[in-house]
Amino acid sequence: MNTTSFFSDMLQSIAERGRRFLSLGPARNGDVNPVGTMEALCDTLLSSRGEASGMALAKNILDRWQGFDQDKRRDFMLALLSRFGPDIERLERAIDAYRADPTPKALLEMSMAAEPRRQELIRRLNLAPNGIATLVRMRADLLELKAQNPDLEAVDTDFAHLFGSWFNRGFLVLRPISWSTPADILEKIIRYEAVHHIGGWDELRRRLAPEDRRCFAFFHPQLVDDPLIFVEVALTREMPPNIADLLKEDRAPIRATDATTAVFYSISNCQEGLRGISFGNFLIKQVVEDLRRDLPRLDTFVTLSPVPGFADWLSRERQAETSNALSAADRSRLAALDEPDWADQPEIAAAIQPSLTAAAAWYFLRARNRNGKTVDPVARFHLGNGARLERINFLGDRSERAMRQAHGLMVNYLYKLDDIETNHEAFATRGEVVAAPAIRRLIPADRSSRSLVPGPNVFPPGVRSADAPGRKGDKEFTS
Amino acid sequence: MNTTSFFSDMLQSIAERGRRFLSLGPARNGDVNPVGTMEALCDTLLSSRGEASGMALAKNILDRWQGFDQDKRRDFMLALLSRFGPDIERLERAIDAYRADPTPKALLEMSMAAEPRRQELIRRLNLAPNGIATLVRMRADLLELKAQNPDLEAVDTDFAHLFGSWFNRGFLVLRPISWSTPADILEKIIRYEAVHHIGGWDELRRRLAPEDRRCFAFFHPQLVDDPLIFVEVALTREMPPNIADLLKEDRAPIRATDATTAVFYSISNCQEGLRGISFGNFLIKQVVEDLRRDLPRLDTFVTLSPVPGFADWLSRERQAETSNALSAADRSRLAALDEPDWADQPEIAAAIQPSLTAAAAWYFLRARNRNGKTVDPVARFHLGNGARLERINFLGDRSERAMRQAHGLMVNYLYKLDDIETNHEAFATRGEVVAAPAIRRLIPADRSSRSLVPGPNVFPPGVRSADAPGRKGDKEFTS
Amino acid sequence: MNTTSFFSDMLQSIAERGRRFLSLGPARNGDVNPVGTMEALCDTLLSSRGEASGMALAKNILDRWQGFDQDKRRDFMLALLSRFGPDIERLERAIDAYRADPTPKALLEMSMAAEPRRQELIRRLNLAPNGIATLVRMRADLLELKAQNPDLEAVDTDFAHLFGSWFNRGFLVLRPISWSTPADILEKIIRYEAVHHIGGWDELRRRLAPEDRRCFAFFHPQLVDDPLIFVEVALTREMPPNIADLLKEDRAPIRATDATTAVFYSISNCQEGLRGISFGNFLIKQVVEDLRRDLPRLDTFVTLSPVPGFADWLSRERQAETSNALSAADRSRLAALDEPDWADQPEIAAAIQPSLTAAAAWYFLRARNRNGKTVDPVARFHLGNGARLERINFLGDRSERAMRQAHGLMVNYLYKLDDIETNHEAFATRGEVVAAPAIRRLIPADRSSRSLVPGPNVFPPGVRSADAPGRKGDKEFTS
Amino acid sequence: MNTTSFFSDMLQSIAERGRRFLSLGPARNGDVNPVGTMEALCDTLLSSRGEASGMALAKNILDRWQGFDQDKRRDFMLALLSRFGPDIERLERAIDAYRADPTPKALLEMSMAAEPRRQELIRRLNLAPNGIATLVRMRADLLELKAQNPDLEAVDTDFAHLFGSWFNRGFLVLRPISWSTPADILEKIIRYEAVHHIGGWDELRRRLAPEDRRCFAFFHPQLVDDPLIFVEVALTREMPPNIADLLKEDRAPIRATDATTAVFYSISNCQEGLRGISFGNFLIKQVVEDLRRDLPRLDTFVTLSPVPGFADWLSRERQAETSNALSAADRSRLAALDEPDWADQPEIAAAIQPSLTAAAAWYFLRARNRNGKTVDPVARFHLGNGARLERINFLGDRSERAMRQAHGLMVNYLYKLDDIETNHEAFATRGEVVAAPAIRRLIPADRSSRSLVPGPNVFPPGVRSADAPGRKGDKEFTS
Repeated sequence: MNTTSFFSDMLQSIAERGRRFLSLGPARNGDVNPVGTMEALCDTLLSSRGEASGMALAKNILDRWQGFDQDKRRDFMLALLSRFGPDIERLERAIDAYRADPTPKALLEMSMAAEPRRQELIRRLNLAPNGIATLVRMRADLLELKAQNPDLEAVDTDFAHLFGSWFNRGFLVLRPISWSTPADILEKIIRYEAVHHIGGWDELRRRLAPEDRRCFAFFHPQLVDDPLIFVEVALTREMPPNIADLLKEDRAPIRATDATTAVFYSISNCQEGLRGISFGNFLIKQVVEDLRRDLPRLDTFVTLSPVPGFADWLSRERQAETSNALSAADRSRLAALDEPDWADQPEIAAAIQPSLTAAAAWYFLRARNRNGKTVDPVARFHLGNGARLERINFLGDRSERAMRQAHGLMVNYLYKLDDIETNHEAFATRGEVVAAPAIRRLIPADRSSRSLVPGPNVFPPGVRSADAPGRKGDKEFTS
Repeated sequence: MNTTSFFSDMLQSIAERGRRFLSLGPARNGDVNPVGTMEALCDTLLSSRGEASGMALAKNILDRWQGFDQDKRRDFMLALLSRFGPDIERLERAIDAYRADPTPKALLEMSMAAEPRRQELIRRLNLAPNGIATLVRMRADLLELKAQNPDLEAVDTDFAHLFGSWFNRGFLVLRPISWSTPADILEKIIRYEAVHHIGGWDELRRRLAPEDRRCFAFFHPQLVDDPLIFVEVALTREMPPNIADLLKEDRAPIRATDATTAVFYSISNCQEGLRGISFGNFLIKQVVEDLRRDLPRLDTFVTLSPVPGFADWLSRERQAETSNALSAADRSRLAALDEPDWADQPEIAAAIQPSLTAAAAWYFLRARNRNGKTVDPVARFHLGNGARLERINFLGDRSERAMRQAHGLMVNYLYKLDDIETNHEAFATRGEVVAAPAIRRLIPADRSSRSLVPGPNVFPPGVRSADAPGRKGDKEFTS
Repeated sequence: MNTTSFFSDMLQSIAERGRRFLSLGPARNGDVNPVGTMEALCDTLLSSRGEASGMALAKNILDRWQGFDQDKRRDFMLALLSRFGPDIERLERAIDAYRADPTPKALLEMSMAAEPRRQELIRRLNLAPNGIATLVRMRADLLELKAQNPDLEAVDTDFAHLFGSWFNRGFLVLRPISWSTPADILEKIIRYEAVHHIGGWDELRRRLAPEDRRCFAFFHPQLVDDPLIFVEVALTREMPPNIADLLKEDRAPIRATDATTAVFYSISNCQEGLRGISFGNFLIKQVVEDLRRDLPRLDTFVTLSPVPGFADWLSRERQAETSNALSAADRSRLAALDEPDWADQPEIAAAIQPSLTAAAAWYFLRARNRNGKTVDPVARFHLGNGARLERINFLGDRSERAMRQAHGLMVNYLYKLDDIETNHEAFATRGEVVAAPAIRRLIPADRSSRSLVPGPNVFPPGVRSADAPGRKGDKEFTS
Repeated sequence: MNTTSFFSDMLQSIAERGRRFLSLGPARNGDVNPVGTMEALCDTLLSSRGEASGMALAKNILDRWQGFDQDKRRDFMLALLSRFGPDIERLERAIDAYRADPTPKALLEMSMAAEPRRQELIRRLNLAPNGIATLVRMRADLLELKAQNPDLEAVDTDFAHLFGSWFNRGFLVLRPISWSTPADILEKIIRYEAVHHIGGWDELRRRLAPEDRRCFAFFHPQLVDDPLIFVEVALTREMPPNIADLLKEDRAPIRATDATTAVFYSISNCQEGLRGISFGNFLIKQVVEDLRRDLPRLDTFVTLSPVPGFADWLSRERQAETSNALSAADRSRLAALDEPDWADQPEIAAAIQPSLTAAAAWYFLRARNRNGKTVDPVARFHLGNGARLERINFLGDRSERAMRQAHGLMVNYLYKLDDIETNHEAFATRGEVVAAPAIRRLIPADRSSRSLVPGPNVFPPGVRSADAPGRKGDKEFTS
């Protein structure tokens, strides 16, 4: 018998006793006022002091929530906003006392009074067996609701606050994923892969079993068989210019000990409900350390990454009346992009390449979104981690999605451990993009002054900022 | 190589790179103003965004703290109080805005502005390799400092708040401790045992190896080989009246499958720095479930517990001019307690027994401390968990400590799973002590009205309330 | 890093040093006389006393063998027969000495002299890293060669002798196979399944993941991720009459705790090279004990098994001039079996059923092969284990193979723990087939005297006896 | 619950069913003819084919044996000798047939007929739960009985033969022993340590916990918590000249990464019943590989070893009328050895040192026992493994035992991986002792011709040859 399931059975059994004590029926949807009932249960949970009844209440609330439809879920979130915020009377008294005499004690009371009651509520919901998994789903839901109900930001802040504590990187465990990983975890890898689709078990095997492939994931002790984020790695002898060669079916693996280069070619966040709780950058650094230890000959650590914002940006630049990014000649040459199948015609492709690559250099080095930031979300992730933009790969990915999003471009970001902190600092504090000289040279000297005017935003109006990795709908945020 | 140490090496290596980037020397004590330097480092950590430098800073701060003497540690805590509380300017603006227009957004800003900055600071300190262990020690220190500096309560509140999240019971793992447990954990069991001293490895073996003995501990994933709390269990055929028989060297073990009764005869908290973060009551319930599953014939779950507050209370009652608890006859008979070796003289002991037992019944059922609560801390713990006071055992423990603290009395608390919630509710909300009829009958009818006058407090003035389990100095709080 | 692979790397490294010492080149096939070289290497290995050189030699020999084609492999086996048998001179001397004076010492020398030298050789080959896996493959090969070279029986006897020691049941580990088993093991389950083909990962998941399905395998410590034999189990509420219902895609699982019956519906031997080293009967008994412990409500343990020898036997009986098994009426009714699609025509099927079932009863209870044994190999396995023939299921399996081999019949064998030894004894010593009364009644009284004349053998001439489970070609031997 | 114990419970349960079937009472000693009963049970076991009854019989036989006193155990072994040898009639027939026509088939029958029946019997006894542990104890017993009953050699040969297969090095698992190893294993380390006594848990901790100490053991999968052999290692900066410095209580550990030298200062065989089944030399080589991998700076691997045969040999040489080993001057100087406390008197010790060291050089390089082999058993072990005699350490061990056995001498043997095979070959085939030049130079040129006359044997008459490591009584054989 499995320890985890044994433990979880035991918790179920304790919760069950509490349920009988509370005379709670199973969660039902036939209530006249189900959300009202939920609020009452939450009040009881907040005032409860018994262990078993607390667990039973938490379980009951989460079970009910899972039975809710979207409307009831929204109403429940709005109730968390309005009814489980700070205790207003206590807060008013605390403000009065503090303003009267700002002693440390008055300040402490202020801090405590200002804490929304739902923080403690969420903490207690976590007592339910497997509570954390449901709470993560609850927040995934909340992130969608927030788009229509901006006030729910306050509720989300509390979820994010607690998740930040619970998913503190100190708690995370890095585990290799291989062909000898349990199948129930592997099927999640297939499902969560967001960058380069995995077509089934045979394809998964090709990504995990060969000696020159690696995969690593972060796990949390309470989500034992559900990865939080994972990265796929290819071991090669050089920095790869395209994805097709890495993934092709009939390639011959090299010996791991012959590899000099580790290529991070896919990073996927798994849990939408943990958006904004960052572990990605830590993941890459730990994997680098791990690989270096295991394979001392490795000396180069790079990504092979998509450029998801490029085609939209380029389209806008091409349509704009004036563009710093594109010369008239470039515009004219790039017109060929509108032809279907341009990529299959070597002459046309060759003609497009210099202009497209130069535009990409501008896109990374000069273009900024309306917040003054680097346009490309994947670029923001890796540059923010301290990587450097190393190479632009023309037609690096011929998949339909890559052609649509990036006219087939891919890039390599280089992780050089000794430069990571310096690069990070440059990007985080001064917005400087560290790039290889060959990329810098792609920007003509006459246009090399820093563009002061933000370019058009890569995201159409109405869509929320994509600063947070893990955009809704495709879970992808990187590589 | 051990996974944990491998992982921890990897973190050290990442932190090391950060250290070089920051040009941090190793922690030294030769600074002119070491606490000032610490404050500066804390400011930097709070504003830092780099991973490696964050880890390096956190490690550096914790290393320095470990080198501090008591004076510097106090100054550092006072700095956390005064310099890392809420951002006062932001808070004032938030109050003004909220009073002007109490929108959800203004309220959210209030909540955020009122949160002390040291919460985030402590969270970031946890990034250091093994940070949590140092933070737990830091709080143990803080609990001592608080006695002289009551304002530090605000700092302690933040530690306790974060520990409440990090040591959320959902994260704890119950593990059996046996003679096949790693020796480095077993030596901690020897050290942490707080109720019935373990004299060495041979004695430990007698408590763990026989078939009719069990031990269980809660662990936290980040404190892999350091238990948080543990309970020792004897499997017997009846509720035991004294500790000597349970622990004697030459007893013959019974077969585990023949046992009907599980006796919790020692519960020890291990981490002073986690005082008030309760897991004890949960521990007992999980162990009960676990034992029932493994040994279905078990039908009785009791403790054999000390009565640490009894002798002090009785002494006060005997010295008081009037006492509801003691009749004149009792007082006179109990005078024999002042003779040394009374317990060795069967006739004297027999004469004392009825009065002493009756006084104990009063002590549990009627006596209240200045906060209106049950006097005995161990009783508060078990009754608060929903146990019932089952039997008073005259001369249940002849050890020097037990004779001094309780004139040798021990008691059994009974854990009956189906009554736990009801008992708990009665005690928690109405202060009712649930006890076996035989104990209730020990209170003479003419004094059976509920005592309205609080008895003398068991704790001398100036000592803090013992509500929190785990009183300083002996780590013990129960059994 | 995985412990096993670490250990195996270490052995490789030790073997490598030995290789350099021996100045052995890598195994090549360009030798003028590769088998001769092998013999020389084997001689050296037998006389070697160095550890590292022994490992290097063993590895070199096994590597060379793997490069051999079938002719060279046969020649190598013949060399094992002729050159690595007992030392003839020593044996002759030992016989002379023993006949002269049969002392214990002379007898000991006889025993030692009569032991073929290849036994020690095989033992030393096992020193090579992963040697045992290669030796198991070598014997699989040998079993094929034996058909053409009956003298190789002597070599096979030595392999079987050593495998009997190495795969002694005391060394085997029973492990549950589930959807959380490592994928590299699961893909072997797909490949080794010999009774009811597994079409891919989705089908495997349906056999492992539902709550009412179980699978168990025996493993050997030196073949860590390669099962030796496995059994698939369905938990049901009744003894199932056909396989289709058990395996259908859209069935609703029942709760494991509601099940009363465990159905062993597929048992597959995995290693052809271990044929005749029996662990199957032990497997079933251990799985029964394991299931009973985990699910105390289970009270019935049955198989749902194929009848692979039935159609051949029936065809012979139908063609024979006279048959005790079939009456004239039966013969006439069974003529309909020759029509294609008879099973799809309810009326025809209904007409066939009584005669077919009665013939099957005769097949199990009366028919004997030329060795005087029960004809059906699966029956021999389960009856030999102490099971009882419980029910004959008309059209229990409509698959092409089952229609061809058994006209669609399946049977249930019942494992009743308290009767196992008695049943086994009856079958093993007296050849009695223990069957349910309903099956016994299918034999008409006038033909109920025991058939003394062996029926026609179920196996065509030229094919070796199928006594050993695991017939070549389909690996299947049971269920 | 522990997997191993679960599995073992399951086997007990299966054996129990068999016991009931066989109507076996529990093993008792009240039989009129207990050994006769045992023989009958063994006959039954050999002819049994049922699984459960086989296990039950095996368990019953082993249980009875454990209840036997020494006389009955001897009689049982004699019965194994006389009643369970080869089947004499079959053997005679096989000899006749073979002599008539020596076909491969006749030879095969010869081999099979000559195999003692007790081999299969022992194999079947291994079916009992924990059977192997009892069989190992049985052989420990047998080794003692053999001294009085030389004919039992034939029985021992069969035990050794099977143990050789079962404890084949391929099955052994190397596991580090540390302060985080389970206490039940550690207490066995304390008990089994045979070279430098471990006084208790505190001393054990000093040998395991410091960063510059290591310990490794071989385990067998069926003897999960019982080591077979273990070695203790100190990591140092130089080859150590004495044991006291390595083991002293208050030494300051060095950092493991600073060490250049690994010192094997104690190797203990744990199981007397496995005497002669060698794993020691494999252990050292695997530990060397393991340490090199973990600590690449290590470049020297040496032992610090006792010289257990030296004092006896020297005493004989001193008493002999003539001695090649000792000059008259040496004899006269060595007379001081007879004074008690000579070692405490620096001047006397200084006078003795040159003669004693030179005598030791002779002892290792020239002296041979009556079998023509190196006298010292520890030297035979390490030189046979391919080590070289590196240094003789005067007063390397001042313990009472070392003073008595070796006048306090210790030596270092050097394991240089690249020379191991050559050294081994030189020693094994030509009897050459490879030693450091400084040791060779201790032999005066005029006596440097190879001594042809074997010196007096190190073992008094009547004691069996000590070729096998692990002499009875102290279990020690090396370091």
